[in-house]
Amino acid sequence: MLAYTQTRRIEWGDCDPAGIVFNPRYFAFFDHGAAMLFETAGWPKPMLLQTFQIVGIPLVETQARFLAPCAFGDDVIITTAVSEIRRSSLDISHRLLKGDQLCVEGRETRVWAGRDPAGRMKSAPIPAEVVSRLTSD
Amino acid sequence: MLAYTQTRRIEWGDCDPAGIVFNPRYFAFFDHGAAMLFETAGWPKPMLLQTFQIVGIPLVETQARFLAPCAFGDDVIITTAVSEIRRSSLDISHRLLKGDQLCVEGRETRVWAGRDPAGRMKSAPIPAEVVSRLTSD
Amino acid sequence: MLAYTQTRRIEWGDCDPAGIVFNPRYFAFFDHGAAMLFETAGWPKPMLLQTFQIVGIPLVETQARFLAPCAFGDDVIITTAVSEIRRSSLDISHRLLKGDQLCVEGRETRVWAGRDPAGRMKSAPIPAEVVSRLTSD
Amino acid sequence: MLAYTQTRRIEWGDCDPAGIVFNPRYFAFFDHGAAMLFETAGWPKPMLLQTFQIVGIPLVETQARFLAPCAFGDDVIITTAVSEIRRSSLDISHRLLKGDQLCVEGRETRVWAGRDPAGRMKSAPIPAEVVSRLTSD
Repeated sequence: MLAYTQTRRIEWGDCDPAGIVFNPRYFAFFDHGAAMLFETAGWPKPMLLQTFQIVGIPLVETQARFLAPCAFGDDVIITTAVSEIRRSSLDISHRLLKGDQLCVEGRETRVWAGRDPAGRMKSAPIPAEVVSRLTSD
Repeated sequence: MLAYTQTRRIEWGDCDPAGIVFNPRYFAFFDHGAAMLFETAGWPKPMLLQTFQIVGIPLVETQARFLAPCAFGDDVIITTAVSEIRRSSLDISHRLLKGDQLCVEGRETRVWAGRDPAGRMKSAPIPAEVVSRLTSD
Repeated sequence: MLAYTQTRRIEWGDCDPAGIVFNPRYFAFFDHGAAMLFETAGWPKPMLLQTFQIVGIPLVETQARFLAPCAFGDDVIITTAVSEIRRSSLDISHRLLKGDQLCVEGRETRVWAGRDPAGRMKSAPIPAEVVSRLTSD
Repeated sequence: MLAYTQTRRIEWGDCDPAGIVFNPRYFAFFDHGAAMLFETAGWPKPMLLQTFQIVGIPLVETQARFLAPCAFGDDVIITTAVSEIRRSSLDISHRLLKGDQLCVEGRETRVWAGRDPAGRMKSAPIPAEVVSRLTSD
């Protein structure tokens, strides 16, 4: 499967009064990872929407497990990859490590969303070309 | 079970280029709901840490299902309540509604965290008094 | 001058490891105040853009003075008002108080922005009706 | 003067419904630049506080001018440097460029803050060693 790896320095503004990363920031990191995964596949997000005439690939579900805290100044590595692709939705997983230590595991489901004739958002089949690139190594 | 309900106006800065709430913001809303739930039980967060000599009640797991998007200017209502209490951890659920429509459902697990003699964070039994107030109506 | 007053509870996620509000959050509070000022004048932001066929009222300059810190759990009151209106731009001021204490003063300049025939963003005269409502008491 | 340069990819979550960076995010970028400037000088923020027994170097004033918008996917370069040092406060400037285009200019004043005998935050003289390193090339 295609993967995207980002390195991040944990910033002061990512952290809360306990001195550790405020949990919503992890979801922002993961969202960036998902966007970059599609960019790595060949389609920066604006181009993705235009090329395939979709509204977006909105989240329908997300979850995270917090195994160890990260603090201001930590350098972390986040790897994002597709874990499963179905007809019109896909699962993306994220693993955030500090050195060898797995700190956060995330998993999300997104839908390939077009519009029905009435203009409402509606799931659509993921094009074969997209499936092919996301599942390549 | 004790519940805390917050009303929020979705702000411009809560939304992304698709014009809908950027998903990490929901987790910030939920985190506030959890803090206010303890405040409603009688212990604002700083007092909670001091009274029970704990380090915090860190998240170990969280998840959310996104059923309908919220956009700039929407008025939403978020209800937060304890859904289960175990010896040293508890589950908190969140329901975000726009009018009658359920838009986001969240569920998180937090640990009651003290310190072991060596100063490392360590789960501890939730005091009976806390359990009692969180489970009252 | 028209004014908009918001009350906010400082949330855990608004604060940094020093336990005080992370300064960018104040600018988010102020941005909300500015949006609500126009809503109070009669035009929620989406309606404002549509009614007057403008692209927006983008910031061209902003500044803030931090006189006293705010911390988690503080209840603050923020008053936003127009301080000066020119032909195609306006100044908006913000005052954030905790009880009687002035904690943060902000001041920003925004431009009334339409499009030129080539589609580029271009300042435009603020309609008399908008000036009239913003300067009413 | 010592300078710190960071490159950033503008992320989806940095942007608002107009598709451009939400202004508070710039202040988060600048705050990171200021923290990294001190780290570049030899003192990561936690070490800075400990070494010199200060509470922090809190903002007392900040301002920014927005010359051109940045959008999702833009790669920007932010250069942070001390522009003036006084006895117990200093000015830090930030310049954000997209290619050759200056998009945002920021300027902030921070105070070197210790504690008086009663424990209240109080400005203190910036140590000569800190001045020396910040003003070196």
